[in-house]
Amino acid sequence: MKPLKTKFLKISFCTIKTAIIVLLFSASAKAQIQKVEPPFWYAGMKNSELQIMFYGKNISQYEASVSNNVAIKNVEKTENPNYLFVTIDTKDVKASELIFSFKNNNKVAFKQKYTLKERRTNSADRKSYDASDLIYLIMPDRFANGNPKNDSDPSLTEKANRQDPSGRHGGDIEGIIKNLDYISALGATTIWSTPLCEDNDKQHSYHTYGQSDVYRIDPRYGTNEDYVRLSSEMHKKDMKLVMDYVTNHWGITHWMVKDLPTKSWLNQFENYTQTHHRREVITDIHASKIDQEVCIDGWFVPSMPDLNLRNPLVAKYLTQNAIWWIEYANLDGFRVDTYNYSDKTAMANWAKAITDEYPNFNIVGEIWMHNQANLAFWQKDSKIGAIENYNSNLPSVMDFTLQSQITSAFNENEPSWDNGLIKFYNNFAMDFLYPNPNNILVFAENHDTDRMNHNFKYDLPKYKLAMTLLATVRGIPQIYYGSEIGMGGDKGKGGDADIRQDFPGGWAGDKNNAFTKEGRTPEQAAFFDFSSKLFRWRKTNEAVHFGKMTHYIPENNTYVYFRYTDAKTVMVVFNNNAKEQVVKTSRFKESIKNFKSGKDVITGKTFDLASEITLEPKSALVLELE
Amino acid sequence: MKPLKTKFLKISFCTIKTAIIVLLFSASAKAQIQKVEPPFWYAGMKNSELQIMFYGKNISQYEASVSNNVAIKNVEKTENPNYLFVTIDTKDVKASELIFSFKNNNKVAFKQKYTLKERRTNSADRKSYDASDLIYLIMPDRFANGNPKNDSDPSLTEKANRQDPSGRHGGDIEGIIKNLDYISALGATTIWSTPLCEDNDKQHSYHTYGQSDVYRIDPRYGTNEDYVRLSSEMHKKDMKLVMDYVTNHWGITHWMVKDLPTKSWLNQFENYTQTHHRREVITDIHASKIDQEVCIDGWFVPSMPDLNLRNPLVAKYLTQNAIWWIEYANLDGFRVDTYNYSDKTAMANWAKAITDEYPNFNIVGEIWMHNQANLAFWQKDSKIGAIENYNSNLPSVMDFTLQSQITSAFNENEPSWDNGLIKFYNNFAMDFLYPNPNNILVFAENHDTDRMNHNFKYDLPKYKLAMTLLATVRGIPQIYYGSEIGMGGDKGKGGDADIRQDFPGGWAGDKNNAFTKEGRTPEQAAFFDFSSKLFRWRKTNEAVHFGKMTHYIPENNTYVYFRYTDAKTVMVVFNNNAKEQVVKTSRFKESIKNFKSGKDVITGKTFDLASEITLEPKSALVLELE
Repeated sequence: MKPLKTKFLKISFCTIKTAIIVLLFSASAKAQIQKVEPPFWYAGMKNSELQIMFYGKNISQYEASVSNNVAIKNVEKTENPNYLFVTIDTKDVKASELIFSFKNNNKVAFKQKYTLKERRTNSADRKSYDASDLIYLIMPDRFANGNPKNDSDPSLTEKANRQDPSGRHGGDIEGIIKNLDYISALGATTIWSTPLCEDNDKQHSYHTYGQSDVYRIDPRYGTNEDYVRLSSEMHKKDMKLVMDYVTNHWGITHWMVKDLPTKSWLNQFENYTQTHHRREVITDIHASKIDQEVCIDGWFVPSMPDLNLRNPLVAKYLTQNAIWWIEYANLDGFRVDTYNYSDKTAMANWAKAITDEYPNFNIVGEIWMHNQANLAFWQKDSKIGAIENYNSNLPSVMDFTLQSQITSAFNENEPSWDNGLIKFYNNFAMDFLYPNPNNILVFAENHDTDRMNHNFKYDLPKYKLAMTLLATVRGIPQIYYGSEIGMGGDKGKGGDADIRQDFPGGWAGDKNNAFTKEGRTPEQAAFFDFSSKLFRWRKTNEAVHFGKMTHYIPENNTYVYFRYTDAKTVMVVFNNNAKEQVVKTSRFKESIKNFKSGKDVITGKTFDLASEITLEPKSALVLELE
Repeated sequence: MKPLKTKFLKISFCTIKTAIIVLLFSASAKAQIQKVEPPFWYAGMKNSELQIMFYGKNISQYEASVSNNVAIKNVEKTENPNYLFVTIDTKDVKASELIFSFKNNNKVAFKQKYTLKERRTNSADRKSYDASDLIYLIMPDRFANGNPKNDSDPSLTEKANRQDPSGRHGGDIEGIIKNLDYISALGATTIWSTPLCEDNDKQHSYHTYGQSDVYRIDPRYGTNEDYVRLSSEMHKKDMKLVMDYVTNHWGITHWMVKDLPTKSWLNQFENYTQTHHRREVITDIHASKIDQEVCIDGWFVPSMPDLNLRNPLVAKYLTQNAIWWIEYANLDGFRVDTYNYSDKTAMANWAKAITDEYPNFNIVGEIWMHNQANLAFWQKDSKIGAIENYNSNLPSVMDFTLQSQITSAFNENEPSWDNGLIKFYNNFAMDFLYPNPNNILVFAENHDTDRMNHNFKYDLPKYKLAMTLLATVRGIPQIYYGSEIGMGGDKGKGGDADIRQDFPGGWAGDKNNAFTKEGRTPEQAAFFDFSSKLFRWRKTNEAVHFGKMTHYIPENNTYVYFRYTDAKTVMVVFNNNAKEQVVKTSRFKESIKNFKSGKDVITGKTFDLASEITLEPKSALVLELE
């Protein structure tokens, strides 16, 4: 996530507390319990221990007990008397309603129901996204406004203002649901939406990385039930839903931040301290302690309190919250924000807890670094991690080295020793460092980068080259909403707002509606039709999902690689020159084997492999060998 | 090594053979044995097996036997009848003269003496170069002409021509011996000379990487005895001699190339094939076989036949040759050219054989790559190598990532996110990848790169910054002859010749003699005096040899690190700005501990550490903390 620059607001546990408590408890003296988190849970989890957080005025003075012979394994109090953390063991406890009783002087003062729900069939064995998928990344506020009634919400500060490029525009879950057919027609199988939980920041809350309630969908996007409905509608279409989870920080308006259970819930310095963003220090054997501390414990921005995952209560809270969402919304995967800005041991435990519970569950962490060794360090079972006795347990990372090369290489018509297509070769040549190169996210852009079409000056051939690469290399391709109809965006101009513009047609009254064939301009159609053809083909060919890869050193600014299984072979040929290029096939005979010809998946044209292939300027061929 | 572009000359085993044989054997029918290699050997080697190559007309028709009850373990013949490879076991054989007898029809046709010499005391336990040393790299043809009588040699084609920038200039071993005091006064402890064995190429032989006889010092440099004398004179001065060994290729005029023992002695293709130099393919799990083959087996240039180390005869030949030089010339280490252009398994065996024989012997391989993971792969006991079940057994590699950063960072006065001093921080931050970061060669330039002073536009402050870095970071510093008196050189202008100019004063009649204090221009003196002061200090401080390193993220284009042992702490502070800079010391308190002040090793000035240090523009301080 990319920080917004806001004014510094120091979190003071003591000073704000009184005011908040008055606000929360003055309404009703009977309502001893204001919050219970997780709000409910599930019977039959592999990890049967459940830590329930009860929040209410001076609740720590009470003694908790629970019905149904459920064992209380631990009760933890903090320096804030308004919290009580009760750990029960749900082993062999069936789905049921438990009753917690809170005693004072041996007398039950109040009670609290707590539901253990039935899990869905095969919940633990759920599948997840993988290299057979295409992920479509959406910023929901900017995608489609399916329900204009929820654009603003009385309980939340920031109101809709579509005129403000950094304001709330009204996009929502309903807008995604209404356009699932569009996304599916594009060939995407999976949606990664940026966070949807409540973010009550006073401005710029549309990005929603500063969450104020992680058990509640932001009402401006819809309800928790709407989110479950999105998941359910997607599953009907054989699509997958990936949640964007944030472990590193919450928003300054999070209700717990206003009445911290304990000062150590957050990473706090004597004075406000921002992270230096140099995550190289994490593995650096020469790093100073202070540099490591500021990296991990420093804040992104003053409006995003940095969570202290070394505090076991915090780690447990975030672990259970994550599992709750998987179980509740029937999720298919996570993308995790700013992954290596948190304590790495705590994050390894977090990822392990989730994947212990759901062994097939995929989690891709945002490790925004530019050396494959640094990226590979963070993938589960990494031999590079093992150098420092570390195993992240994180199944997937993002191929940021490839991403930065895509944005430059296709603009390089006159390659040098290390420019042009060799960048891709050299990127994949480092795959030996990754424990699982096929479970890496490959992408040309996301909501934090320049948009590809901007970098390519809206040149369709370059877009086609980039998409062809993503569709055919190892890994899980991810695209970013709108680029498939030619949208651009320049971080240099207006910062993040420009790369997060509204999808045309997402709002009633939009003159241009790119969601429909009829509504698209000819330019939009040209982008979309190519994309759709490519990505829908991709769904059909297992060789580009899980096949092996053999590639050849680029020559004359052309690059050739093969993806293959025992059953299928795909040959991909790039010409990055601004002029026609002839590629002789003899060098590739170990991959071509006995195949005679290849059929281009876009044009349907057949190419004879006996001698040479002629490529148009700035073009690629994806040939199914025959 | 950098290839010269010469015309293609295909090696044909069959066509050249006849002519050569006639030439070699027509003189005397009795001289059945023309060559014996190794020419002699040593008693008491750990590996007691010795493979002796006998070369003579049709020698393979004879049956070999040996005196002194020495066992012949193996006799190997190749398709060329002029070679016989006889392996004897020297276990428990004392230094002595052996007699080999060659029988035909049960009759001794001729005999050959073979000497097993006494080893020097503690030869196996010899020490080697390490981080306490400073290596001075010399191209001997360009350093000093100590003996003008040997500038040309009747037996060798290329004659001296100092007017030709790419010709033989006459520098020699005597020139090095005569200037050892100069080198020592500079503070260097070790000399790495580029190859000195015979290179009978018809032109450009001055670089001597195309060797034509690897048991003979090129007569234009001197004799084998001169080389031993160089070693001996250096040892008297407590200096160390590092030989530049070439495993990958010989010169086209090598006598064995003209009469190959077997076609597979060389890597040969149907047509001349040059390496593509993309050594990323070696570890690339997606690489094609053809790309890997061309990388390793392709030639540098047509005049440098590529040795096939997968042939055990070749591997043994090169192993014994290397050990012979260590033993014969009493060497202190190797630098190995184009290390990863040869079969990596064969090279691992080669390095192991040498270090088995000499456990402390240091060998630095030229792995010219630009990603720390690629470099670390090649260092002995690498965890990255282990990913591919590989252990190179190579003790040391060259820090090419640092080298490329030195040439750019000190020119960057206005740093961005990834420019300026952060490049150094990020380089050392990757040290966790290396099994032994302190046994890496650190250097700003060598005989194949632009010269630093050229890159710095002869700016003395930048030179000082670079030298201060090399003198104080982890690893073994290496400098390049002449830069210490301000010499420059531009690869863009005249290619290699410009970076390999003659050292002024090395030739009788040179108007400028920079070897002597009196002879130096004021500019040369400014470079030399600083260098000498810095490097001579370096010899005295163990903290910069073997101490730990703690560094701090650069701020405001300043960079601070500490080298420390229990006994000593050195604080190094760089200001890369073109203006004065104040560095607050509070951030470094975990390293400063209870020290109060630091004394600059160059100026002797004392700096108070209580609050802040003021640095001049483009300057560095090396403070011994007190």
